[in-house]
Amino acid sequence: MSDKLRPGADDDTSSARRPVTLQDVAKAAGVSVATVSFVANDRRDVRVADATRARVQRVIDDLGYRPNVMAQTLQHGRSRFIGLVADAIATTPFAGQIIHGAQDEAWKHGYVLLIANTEGDTEAEREAIAMMLEHRVHGVLYSTWFHRAAELPAGLRQADVVMVNCFSPTQEARGVVPDERQGGRTATEALIASGHRRIAFINATTPAPAQTGRLQGYQDALAAAGIDFDPSLVRYAFSDQEGGYDAAGEVLETDATAVFCYNDRMAMGLYDRLRERGLSIPQDMAVVGFDNQEVIAAHLRPPLSTVGLPHYELGAAGVRVLLGLEAPDDDGMTIVACPPFLRDSIVPPALS
Amino acid sequence: MSDKLRPGADDDTSSARRPVTLQDVAKAAGVSVATVSFVANDRRDVRVADATRARVQRVIDDLGYRPNVMAQTLQHGRSRFIGLVADAIATTPFAGQIIHGAQDEAWKHGYVLLIANTEGDTEAEREAIAMMLEHRVHGVLYSTWFHRAAELPAGLRQADVVMVNCFSPTQEARGVVPDERQGGRTATEALIASGHRRIAFINATTPAPAQTGRLQGYQDALAAAGIDFDPSLVRYAFSDQEGGYDAAGEVLETDATAVFCYNDRMAMGLYDRLRERGLSIPQDMAVVGFDNQEVIAAHLRPPLSTVGLPHYELGAAGVRVLLGLEAPDDDGMTIVACPPFLRDSIVPPALS
Repeated sequence: MSDKLRPGADDDTSSARRPVTLQDVAKAAGVSVATVSFVANDRRDVRVADATRARVQRVIDDLGYRPNVMAQTLQHGRSRFIGLVADAIATTPFAGQIIHGAQDEAWKHGYVLLIANTEGDTEAEREAIAMMLEHRVHGVLYSTWFHRAAELPAGLRQADVVMVNCFSPTQEARGVVPDERQGGRTATEALIASGHRRIAFINATTPAPAQTGRLQGYQDALAAAGIDFDPSLVRYAFSDQEGGYDAAGEVLETDATAVFCYNDRMAMGLYDRLRERGLSIPQDMAVVGFDNQEVIAAHLRPPLSTVGLPHYELGAAGVRVLLGLEAPDDDGMTIVACPPFLRDSIVPPALS
Repeated sequence: MSDKLRPGADDDTSSARRPVTLQDVAKAAGVSVATVSFVANDRRDVRVADATRARVQRVIDDLGYRPNVMAQTLQHGRSRFIGLVADAIATTPFAGQIIHGAQDEAWKHGYVLLIANTEGDTEAEREAIAMMLEHRVHGVLYSTWFHRAAELPAGLRQADVVMVNCFSPTQEARGVVPDERQGGRTATEALIASGHRRIAFINATTPAPAQTGRLQGYQDALAAAGIDFDPSLVRYAFSDQEGGYDAAGEVLETDATAVFCYNDRMAMGLYDRLRERGLSIPQDMAVVGFDNQEVIAAHLRPPLSTVGLPHYELGAAGVRVLLGLEAPDDDGMTIVACPPFLRDSIVPPALS
């Protein structure tokens, strides 16, 4: 076993791993600490001979000197950190894209994300927020894995906060959320464009902005196409495959020729039920989902048309609002559109 | 719109949001800065009158003073940060659990994770590593979203590193990886225990430790049960639903009564093909997958028996190795077991 792999090797080499300081560079380059600082910080307003500047830069590169951002934070009062408190980055494939979007946008503006996953635990949340405030974060994104109303934790009242994928009913903070209503309209319009007029909607039983918003969007699309809303075509089920499978039985008792499912998981259950009945998609029943949960939607047989939740964009917009680069609406909210992903579960208009 | 929601409100209130300092507390409590420091850091070795201690603590609570961890880092040379460089936390539901496990373990020992998602981009990786070194991280976890050999980035050679879900073929750093071979054996044993002896294995075409390890485990299990290895029962396909669907056609031309699929996505495609042929699971064909990708495995009809990748545990073990709390094997590696998840796609031994 090589020495560097040995447990405890860290202790033996701690001096080698001690961060390189301004003093180290100054000594090696034979100049003053101030000169190294001027070169390291690219201060062009200070006169340093070109040859000296080049020599110092070479030593900086050789020794691997890095400016100590913590010291800079002490000077400036706020760090280049943005905190992200999430209830569940681990238990859902969605939240990862919120982090990804927030990280990309933060980096673009010279900030680094400090991420804490609390799994909804109040104590873990309190500790995460304390940790972020101790690190003098510039501000905090408070994020939930599904779009919902949320109460801002007490510890965040003294921080600059943007809520992402959630909102404060009492307007305690700005919020960035997906446009559920437009998403529901987009999904339904895709079916109408394909010639369908008897369109069922399998909605979720869990109260949420998605439940009410997608239903409104469904009704908007029908109204715009001059199709009467028929409440008997709206069914409710638990929002997973089993719920979709069960509700599919009810839908098959109606004269619906197309179904808009609250999410892709329910559409997957619907697929199972239709197959059991010997029915083909989209010939016997057109289907559109919601979420664009890629591992399901892109790989069902046939691949599922759906509407995506803009998680990446929610995270990115959250950072822009926090940094004052994007102004929210007058009510403090930023609404992000849900884009369609058209695959093979809807008969193309030309064929219908 | 309330004032706190107004863009730019941040600027107006920056003085109110200035972090509370030791000086602020000292002034409000009418004591010295040193006394506040003693109370804030709970220094019991220093004599502070109980009444004074209580008064200072009350002011600390009232003003919301927090010790500045950055200043502590400057004093001690290393921060309480652990860096986590991941190639893709966003594009896979897996990596989230690595982060979750690493975060929980880090917090347990008073550390905070600094996370960077690079999407495999070399430039982003270089910047992420520079950021972490600038923040004086205690050490770095270098993680990949699927188990593979990886080259340690040059920037990490000067840091204390543990590779998670990957390893250095040249032993440049310690590594924590899943036990693919044991996982393959466990999957195959579940089918053997159910009475099957003609067991097909649909393997992946992509070279990876999972491809070779799971095949070895499959052979181990057969050998232990006295079943001859028949290479014609091993098929190769791309590791997604479509690959599983295609390979299922080949498997159905053999006399196999059970199939071990390289992953749950391939098993999902196999399910589709079997259904098309009017075959029932597990009566006509027993199936076991790999990954325990919950959104698929737990919700197929019937729910899929599978073997889980221990992502949470990989992240947690990575932190323990980094902090010297757990010793790796002599070759610098820590191997984590892959646990079985038995559901309804295998006939229970009692019924077979």
